[in-house]
Amino acid sequence: MSSGQRQPASKAPDRAQSVVALGGGHGLHASLSALRMLVDDLTVDELTAVVTVADNGGSSGRLREQFRVLPPGDLRMALAALCGDDEWGDTWARVLQHRFAGDGDMRGHVVGNLLIVGLWELLGDEVDPVDALDWVGRLLGAKGRVLPMALTPMDITADVRGLKDNPYELVTVRGQVQVATTEGVIAAIALDPPDPAVSPAVLEAIAEADWTVLGPGSWFTSVIPHLMVPQVRDALVETDARLIVVLNLGEQPGETHGFGPADHLAVLAEHAPDLAIHTVIADRESVGGDVEDLRALVAALGARLVLDDVALGDGTPRHSPAKLAAAYARVMAEGDG
Amino acid sequence: MSSGQRQPASKAPDRAQSVVALGGGHGLHASLSALRMLVDDLTVDELTAVVTVADNGGSSGRLREQFRVLPPGDLRMALAALCGDDEWGDTWARVLQHRFAGDGDMRGHVVGNLLIVGLWELLGDEVDPVDALDWVGRLLGAKGRVLPMALTPMDITADVRGLKDNPYELVTVRGQVQVATTEGVIAAIALDPPDPAVSPAVLEAIAEADWTVLGPGSWFTSVIPHLMVPQVRDALVETDARLIVVLNLGEQPGETHGFGPADHLAVLAEHAPDLAIHTVIADRESVGGDVEDLRALVAALGARLVLDDVALGDGTPRHSPAKLAAAYARVMAEGDG
Repeated sequence: MSSGQRQPASKAPDRAQSVVALGGGHGLHASLSALRMLVDDLTVDELTAVVTVADNGGSSGRLREQFRVLPPGDLRMALAALCGDDEWGDTWARVLQHRFAGDGDMRGHVVGNLLIVGLWELLGDEVDPVDALDWVGRLLGAKGRVLPMALTPMDITADVRGLKDNPYELVTVRGQVQVATTEGVIAAIALDPPDPAVSPAVLEAIAEADWTVLGPGSWFTSVIPHLMVPQVRDALVETDARLIVVLNLGEQPGETHGFGPADHLAVLAEHAPDLAIHTVIADRESVGGDVEDLRALVAALGARLVLDDVALGDGTPRHSPAKLAAAYARVMAEGDG
Repeated sequence: MSSGQRQPASKAPDRAQSVVALGGGHGLHASLSALRMLVDDLTVDELTAVVTVADNGGSSGRLREQFRVLPPGDLRMALAALCGDDEWGDTWARVLQHRFAGDGDMRGHVVGNLLIVGLWELLGDEVDPVDALDWVGRLLGAKGRVLPMALTPMDITADVRGLKDNPYELVTVRGQVQVATTEGVIAAIALDPPDPAVSPAVLEAIAEADWTVLGPGSWFTSVIPHLMVPQVRDALVETDARLIVVLNLGEQPGETHGFGPADHLAVLAEHAPDLAIHTVIADRESVGGDVEDLRALVAALGARLVLDDVALGDGTPRHSPAKLAAAYARVMAEGDG
């Protein structure tokens, strides 16, 4: 590198990295907000989000049912997380995230969801709904690409214990909202259809990535579903990209009630036994006394454990994008060294 | 002018002109489509649309009622007419004009209407709804500015004859849709509120224009309403800009049933007796045998009559943007000579 060019920070990897982040909802939004800081920072030069398309509630659920399209909400939220940081990107991101109040038929709908569905109707979503998402990305000056995990709307089903008199009897619960709010204990999830078509863009991005990132987010309804799409799971297994799993900061009422950090990791591994995990990032304080359980499982899986301070620290179980960005950068620098 | 610079065409005015086009709906869309050709052509260097905000039907009517905002539809259509002619402007214009089908609560809503209302909610529309329209204009790469004729939603009321047993009895009909489709004969229209607030941007644009253009369009519900807003009418009377009135290609079922070209011009003049008209543009073939009546009235009003071929010629009573552009250019060249 000639003198006068930007020097990498002490902890930055030797060359810019390409990253694919898989997830959905607020967890993916936090992870993408962190990763876009690394784009600004030149640590990451290619960023792709792969997003769950199983939502059946709210504005997304209504649009999915009316128009037979992918639920747009998680895609929209990922796009907003990647918006450019000038007034233009910021304003359009806020417009796209705006949820209508009022007292009529628009109540609860989100502007960006309607824009995405409008684009799908106009451009045709039958071949590949990716074009429309690229248009919204261009509108926002997005610092990465947003892709759906599958080309057809998905339904999550879960085998759930504890809903019957016999506490061991498994009941099938269907629908993302229903699974996320079940009062039972989720044993396993599956997708319907079980082997959906996947955009070639998703498979290429995973194949060519340096790093893949799974989590944080709703564990059974936004994170693990990616491992239940056979083409996506196979791509994750076959790629040379190293997988970072980011654990949540706590259990989630409903879907992971009673789950400790090691339980989260265990159910993820059970859903994709042949998947190699490179690094597990967990928040030191959130893990607390469960650290030895977690350390043992991470070692058994052949992964590295990074305990760090990655919580927003406002009393909510949310990650700090800035702290998560620093943790990603350290993992990438060490993983690349 | 130094040699090598663009030479004006033989019929172009000596310098670029600034134009304010007032109207609403499809008529204004045609007029703006013509005027944007003159922007491309450098005949016009500043183009402002002033748009009726009295619609109470369809998507606009539903949004107006739910959110207590200006009906966005005519504003959206004017913005779409001014979109940039690259793939970017064209695509976003088509997205904004897209009307949802489906079988649910979105049916009939138009993407651009929802985007404008979302921007109003986000940016606040209490002071001036113009900011949000400027944002949509920037999105489209619009070749001009779009402004509402008033800052509050308006209702059109009409005095209508022929709805009672006594054919001379006047009945008040309220609402743009109701007025546009009345089976009676409209004698006069008014607005409620009668003296609405007007954006300073509208008054400035009219004051500084070289030309103002009124029509074509739904005569009582999109064209004449501009003359019923006292601040707009006063601005039109006081400006040095010369007024071009573009007559429709025929009567309109409902609001101008039975009206010939001279009748159209007469009711317009009656609604603003102190307004000086510079030029009246009419389609030669549409005027047909009514030409002497029209010529006499135009002369009585102190205006010039331009008979030209400005019809699209597809059997519908629509103007050809290209032919209308040529007619505007000729009027401007002669008016400026």
